[in-house]
Amino acid sequence: MAAYKGKRVLITGGLGFIGSNLAVRLVGEDAEVSIVDSSVEGCGANLYNIAPIRDRVKLIPAGICDAELFRDDLMSAEVIFNLAGEISHTHSMEFAERDLQINAVAQLQFLLGCRQHARGRRIVYASTRQVYGAPEYLPVDESHPVNPIDFNGVHKFAATNYHLLMSRSGDIDAIALRLTNVYGPRMALNIPCQGFLSNFLRRLLLGQTIEIYGDGNQLRDPMFVDDAVEAFLMAGAAVRPPSRVYNVGGPQALSLSEIACMAAASADAPEPVFRPFPEHQKEIDIGSYYTDSTRIRTELGWTPAVRFEEGIRRTVAYYRSELSHYLDPAAGEPTCNLPEHDGARRRLRYGAA
Amino acid sequence: MAAYKGKRVLITGGLGFIGSNLAVRLVGEDAEVSIVDSSVEGCGANLYNIAPIRDRVKLIPAGICDAELFRDDLMSAEVIFNLAGEISHTHSMEFAERDLQINAVAQLQFLLGCRQHARGRRIVYASTRQVYGAPEYLPVDESHPVNPIDFNGVHKFAATNYHLLMSRSGDIDAIALRLTNVYGPRMALNIPCQGFLSNFLRRLLLGQTIEIYGDGNQLRDPMFVDDAVEAFLMAGAAVRPPSRVYNVGGPQALSLSEIACMAAASADAPEPVFRPFPEHQKEIDIGSYYTDSTRIRTELGWTPAVRFEEGIRRTVAYYRSELSHYLDPAAGEPTCNLPEHDGARRRLRYGAA
Repeated sequence: MAAYKGKRVLITGGLGFIGSNLAVRLVGEDAEVSIVDSSVEGCGANLYNIAPIRDRVKLIPAGICDAELFRDDLMSAEVIFNLAGEISHTHSMEFAERDLQINAVAQLQFLLGCRQHARGRRIVYASTRQVYGAPEYLPVDESHPVNPIDFNGVHKFAATNYHLLMSRSGDIDAIALRLTNVYGPRMALNIPCQGFLSNFLRRLLLGQTIEIYGDGNQLRDPMFVDDAVEAFLMAGAAVRPPSRVYNVGGPQALSLSEIACMAAASADAPEPVFRPFPEHQKEIDIGSYYTDSTRIRTELGWTPAVRFEEGIRRTVAYYRSELSHYLDPAAGEPTCNLPEHDGARRRLRYGAA
Repeated sequence: MAAYKGKRVLITGGLGFIGSNLAVRLVGEDAEVSIVDSSVEGCGANLYNIAPIRDRVKLIPAGICDAELFRDDLMSAEVIFNLAGEISHTHSMEFAERDLQINAVAQLQFLLGCRQHARGRRIVYASTRQVYGAPEYLPVDESHPVNPIDFNGVHKFAATNYHLLMSRSGDIDAIALRLTNVYGPRMALNIPCQGFLSNFLRRLLLGQTIEIYGDGNQLRDPMFVDDAVEAFLMAGAAVRPPSRVYNVGGPQALSLSEIACMAAASADAPEPVFRPFPEHQKEIDIGSYYTDSTRIRTELGWTPAVRFEEGIRRTVAYYRSELSHYLDPAAGEPTCNLPEHDGARRRLRYGAA
């Protein structure tokens, strides 16, 4: 995309899954890329994600809350891609205050920093379909009621609103993308609470059978990461976009069973098996979900190009050659335990009743 | 209301405007009342508010975030009325992190405390119409899109969602009331950023002319505090309520001009004057708003009983005899400045661009 040639961009969460793919793409477009990432455990940061561009990006190991630490980079950035955050719904139910700290407190501090050092600048924020909760109708468009059913959804909505109301006042010029399940190369595989696609992939690549919770009939519209990256680039370059919030989903609505079978087939792995839904997952299950992407199609011209069969093939191929950087086969089943974070653990005794 | 006779109740924010009126009423109903209030500056706490019941309530001077400090009171409370918070939209725009701390962080910590020490207990939360933002239609019912235009609305919505999702999982049993402009005795008059009714009253009682911003045609449905208290009591006593969120509004939709003229007449004060809308207020003005209270009328049997003419008369009468406890006529015009709060000021340098 010619719009980024020679442009200075700043990516928060640029060591994570989508952020690093965006960084790789932007370096390919001859942009000058700075990455802010504090590698919070559990959020998917992996230095190997930027291995192909390591000498062509500036890496700032800081939390987004500490805007003073990268003040000059903020001042010079022409576009800011704001992808730092915790995406796990499960983590958020177990460690609610940690999610609040990462996804709302730090975001507010970051945006106050942007107001001071990057006033009026375009910011593209990675929001999530999770703010809608269990769909009242399908496909889900931007008018769907907001009814989050986990702390992650609550805090991502709060941060979305920070972006929107600070744009109303001209402090920044933000667009929020509400993403559906994104998958592809550079996704963390060693964090079991980052969604079903990460789990399916881990099991496949370790030669284990995929396990589906429940009947597997719930629909999802997985989106290949290159399509997500394209949406960020278009939102970053859009001149006077008619809207500030866009739902962004994949090209097909597939059942979890179909997704699992197609993934297994792409890796020559055994057929998936079905397991009863675990209690703690039931609580935050949203049933079927797929996206109405009409608004971003018509207003920004974005359209998802990669079908699941193709995307999962490319994903498996990536991990076949890079697996040692994403999984330690000897490490056994990963767990959801997280380390202490900003005093959250102390508080979380309350939750351990 | 017989339901509260001999019942143990806990009121957070019980030194504030609505909380103290609720406490006075509950003591009158022979309930055993504990109040948790840390008297955060700017939030309306006033020890004089509970003067008539001071020896019949237990006052716990603690922040709601420190649930361990009132653990026994939580354990024994049969109903919890959760009114602690900052209500000022203007404060929130100036001190966004302070609002986040008071209205979201502390609320989450409080509810995690409730989960541990008051599991499954009924909690009635004081939410606000501000979560809806500028109305897309009138009157505003509970299905209206959530589109807050100030930080206060963002954080009150986050805290509402904490209540709702922790009720889904059975951790608590919460109801959120979305209140419109409440007025009446015990309202703070020395905090200029707590809404137009507080400002109108202060000017009246000091013998000054009321100033209306703009043309004064915006509609509001002011609610007398006794009606708000009644809604809290009904929500606290409701057995298996069909809903978890109720809009609660006053009996009449009146223009700001009408409200100002009626208020002036009730105090034999001069006619109001009109002033241009200040810039910083324009940004968070929502235009006309009035409430569709159908759901709480039909499901809980609540209805507002006090018309504005009567409510403002009773309010003026209260302050005529108690004014010295609410205003220092010699102190001059109050300002919006707030003291340091949980490190917010340090961060707020960002905002002082």
